[in-house]
Parts: sequence; C-alpha cells; structure tokens
Amino acid sequence: MATTFKQLGLIGCGLMGGSFALALKQAGMVERVIGYSKSPSTTEKARQLGVIDQVAESALLAVSGADIVLIAVPVAATEATFRAIKHLVSPDVLFMDVGSTKRDVVDAARRSLKERAVAFVPAHPITGKELSGVQHADASLYRDRQVILTPIAQTLPSLVEKAQEVWTAIGSQVRIMTPESHDAAFAAVSHLPHLLAFAFFTGILQQAESEEFLALAGPGFRDFTRIAASDPAVWRDILIANREEVLRQSEHFRGALGVLEKVLRDCEGESLEALVRGVSEARSQWRMGAPRAR
Amino acid sequence: MATTFKQLGLIGCGLMGGSFALALKQAGMVERVIGYSKSPSTTEKARQLGVIDQVAESALLAVSGADIVLIAVPVAATEATFRAIKHLVSPDVLFMDVGSTKRDVVDAARRSLKERAVAFVPAHPITGKELSGVQHADASLYRDRQVILTPIAQTLPSLVEKAQEVWTAIGSQVRIMTPESHDAAFAAVSHLPHLLAFAFFTGILQQAESEEFLALAGPGFRDFTRIAASDPAVWRDILIANREEVLRQSEHFRGALGVLEKVLRDCEGESLEALVRGVSEARSQWRMGAPRAR
Repeated sequence: MATTFKQLGLIGCGLMGGSFALALKQAGMVERVIGYSKSPSTTEKARQLGVIDQVAESALLAVSGADIVLIAVPVAATEATFRAIKHLVSPDVLFMDVGSTKRDVVDAARRSLKERAVAFVPAHPITGKELSGVQHADASLYRDRQVILTPIAQTLPSLVEKAQEVWTAIGSQVRIMTPESHDAAFAAVSHLPHLLAFAFFTGILQQAESEEFLALAGPGFRDFTRIAASDPAVWRDILIANREEVLRQSEHFRGALGVLEKVLRDCEGESLEALVRGVSEARSQWRMGAPRAR
Repeated sequence: MATTFKQLGLIGCGLMGGSFALALKQAGMVERVIGYSKSPSTTEKARQLGVIDQVAESALLAVSGADIVLIAVPVAATEATFRAIKHLVSPDVLFMDVGSTKRDVVDAARRSLKERAVAFVPAHPITGKELSGVQHADASLYRDRQVILTPIAQTLPSLVEKAQEVWTAIGSQVRIMTPESHDAAFAAVSHLPHLLAFAFFTGILQQAESEEFLALAGPGFRDFTRIAASDPAVWRDILIANREEVLRQSEHFRGALGVLEKVLRDCEGESLEALVRGVSEARSQWRMGAPRAR
C-alpha cells in the first residue's frame, strides 16, 4: 500500500524533523518539503543540505498547501505552534508531532486547536542522538525504532490509520497508548535516566579533581553518560512537562540506591552479589524494542 | 624494542585474562601460555579456543616455568592466589594483575608476598565488556585503552619498565598512579556509575509495570544500563573493596541530584536549562582516554 503525499510542511528543521523529511524523501513518499524554523540560519542550512526544498517564512506558511505536517519543536513550543497554524488545521491534512511527552501536548492541542484537534495525531518516536541539529539528520533515524501514537477520544481514526502507515513505511514499529500511560512509562525508562546522567556528570564536574577523573574514564563511563550530552532546551521542556512522574520514578530509584548503599556500608558481600546478579541477568536478557506481542 | 617471553602463566582464564593471552600471542610476544582457572571447564574451554596452550592443575603449576604471570581473578580472590603461588614469586618473573581496585590488591601483596612483593606490578586496564567469560576474549580488548600501573615503594623499577613495554606493545597507553589516587578516581568514573546503573535497573524491576516499561525502552536506556549487565562476583568485590570511596562519590551524586530535583519540583525552567547546558557542553567536549599531557 503506497502512502504518498504532495507536500510535507515541516515545522522545526532539527535532528528529528530533518530526519523525518529525509526518510519520507528516501521512501519516495513525498514530492516536496517546505520547512520553517525559528532560526532562519537553521532553515537555510536545511535547504542547503537538501533536507527541505523550500523555506517558509512562518509556521503558517509551512502548513499552507501541505497534506502532511510534522511539528518537531521543543515540547514547550508546541502550543505556540498550534496557535500559529490553527486556521489551517483541518481533517484533510495529517498533523503529527514528535514530542517526548504527550499529556502536555494533548492538553495544548485541546486548548488551542479546540474542535480542530481531531486532525492531530500525537506521536513519539523512540529514537534520537546525543547530537542535535539538522546537520545530523539521518534518513534511517526512525528505522527499526518504536513510534508511540497517543490519540485521544476525538482524534479521527482515519488519520491515526494514516499515521500508522507513514511510520511503518519508513521502517518504524507503531504502538498505540494513552497519553497518561505513555508519560508514566517514559518517565521510568527515558526521562529519569537523563536526570540521573545529568546529576552524575554534575557531581563529577563539581570536584576539584574532575579533569583528572575525566581523563581516566573508560567505555563504561562513555556509554553511561552519553545521554548527558542531550540538548538542554529539549530536556528542560521534557523534564518540566513530566516532572511529577519523573520525581515519582526518582523516588523508586533512591529507594533502590539506598538498599545497595546500606549493603555496601555493612560489607554484606553475599547480599550485594545477589542483588547485582538479579539485575545483571535481567539486563542481559533484555532486548531493545521487543514488543510484548511477539 | 621487542619484549618477548617464553611462557605466560595465566591465573584466571576469563574475559580479561583470555584477552591478554590472545593479545600477547597476536603480537608474537609469547611462545606458550599455561592457564589455570578455578573451574576446570573454563580452563578446558580456554584450551579448546586456543586462548591457552596447556592446562595447569593449580595456580602454582601455572607459575612454574613462566617468565610472565597475569593474575586475572575477581579482586577478592587475589590474596588467596598470592598465597598459593608465593613460593615461586621472584624478581626474574613479571607478575601483574588486572584488578579494578588497587589499594586492597597492594595490601594483599604486602601481607602475603612480604619481601617478594617487589616482583608484583599492580595493573588496571581500563576496558571490559558487559559479557564475561573466555568465549568473549578478544585480542584487541586492550588496544587504544589506558592501563594504570600502581607500583609501591618496593616495586622493582625494572619490572615496572617491563610492564610498560608489555602493555604498550599490545596497544595500550600506560599511566602510573598511586593506589590511593587510583581508587579515588575510579570510584568516581567507574564504580559509582555501576552502582547507579544497578540501582536504576532495580528500581524498574521493582515496579508492577516493569515488563511494559522495558518493552518501550530505547537506545538511551540501552546505553545507560549497559554496565548493569556486568559480572556480579567481580562487582561485588570491586564495590566492597572500594566502598568508602564509592559511598563518598555517591554523596556527591546525591547532592547534585537533589539540586536538579528541587529545580524540577519548583518548575524553574531557566535554572534547569542552565544546569543541563553546563553538563551537556562538558560531556560533548569530553573524549575517552585523552591523557592530559596531549
């Protein structure tokens, strides 16, 4: 089944938006990409790199004439984007975002789009790089990755179906969740790890010996802290938007850390080994993106 | 300058020991490898894989006739190994270990080897895999990795020099540190991250939704938790041996986490972004194994 579009309106020409445009182009699913970014230099770079074909002077002009629109801006900028484009939001066009939190995005859509929110299919692709910016856009960023769609009661089923077709066509596995269970799950497996990686790296930087420490760090440190290099504005928005769930997850974590610290302090080697063995076996068996239905 | 040996005595034929044997063989630096492991099936597997040439029935027999000996056992088993081999420890032979903690190993050497400790050059290669066992041994495990040597006052300088030559010949970068500063630094950049990864994964497993959460986790989670799959016996020993420094580092971390949590709870987006930006920039600039002298 061929899902093709005449024109993609891309609002936000960064890593996520740029990669989506490239993926659609590579799959031969879109004739033309019109892009808008807050920063004119970003849009110009996206055009020079062939990620977009034409620069739009505003978000509204990026939507004009499009039959598919992707909003790929930091989460906190989503509502302002909805307001800027709402007069052109209609059920003839598939509107999606790529935000890592969904309750706030859905609330923003209800508030600002009102009954036009039927055309908006909230989406969260589980992917990313620690490198942001359109220069790192990659047509394969979404391939073999999960994409979570979180439609609400009024979302048009025909558009949810079309959204599924689009992501499937560029190699993603689509799952449907409620915005609430989405946000709870991603607080646990994504937002908290980012908070912990930021905190851990901060703890190192605060010490007088930090330069010496960092010169000695090896591959375990490299992988553990990779996400600490993530984009500050993006993560400010995600952590603030989902702060209640993130703080709840942090409590779980502190409890588990406290138990390990107590066992260490008391020098209980056997208990420590048993605790680590349980984790180590569970982590060894885990495989990324293995949907439960398989 | 060619550093060659007649016979490597390998005590502990796991990932680290096996990789060292393969690296020496690949570099044409050793004629024969005699290996001993606590478990006979491990030694047999090592022989079948060509990692060792001959099985020794005891640690002492692995040392007999060797001109280089590598002790690659969990840190807590080091002292028992020293006691088992002490009658054959002499300055004609280069003795090294690969333990991730050094104060306890040096203390064990002083206690059990007494004046023979002159022949022991404590070594810590900054490398590893989350997969343990001789079947994952890899001749390139030490290439482009740092190796820290922590000689003490009585260590023979000629053996420290020879140790440097061996590691350099198989592609490692050698640094000399005191056991104390080594343990403080690795509590910060290696032992604490392991403790945090164990605690984080435990916190997930303790929740009723853990299966659902794990099915949704993506590449950030994968990298952040890679070290949580590490060997339980090895990490029991490391964390117990270095527990004071690890608990001190955990305090630093808890302090930094507390600040981030407070900013989140108070919804201070600007402060949060500034904190994350500092970390993100520092992590983006960091390069693994970049000695300060460069």
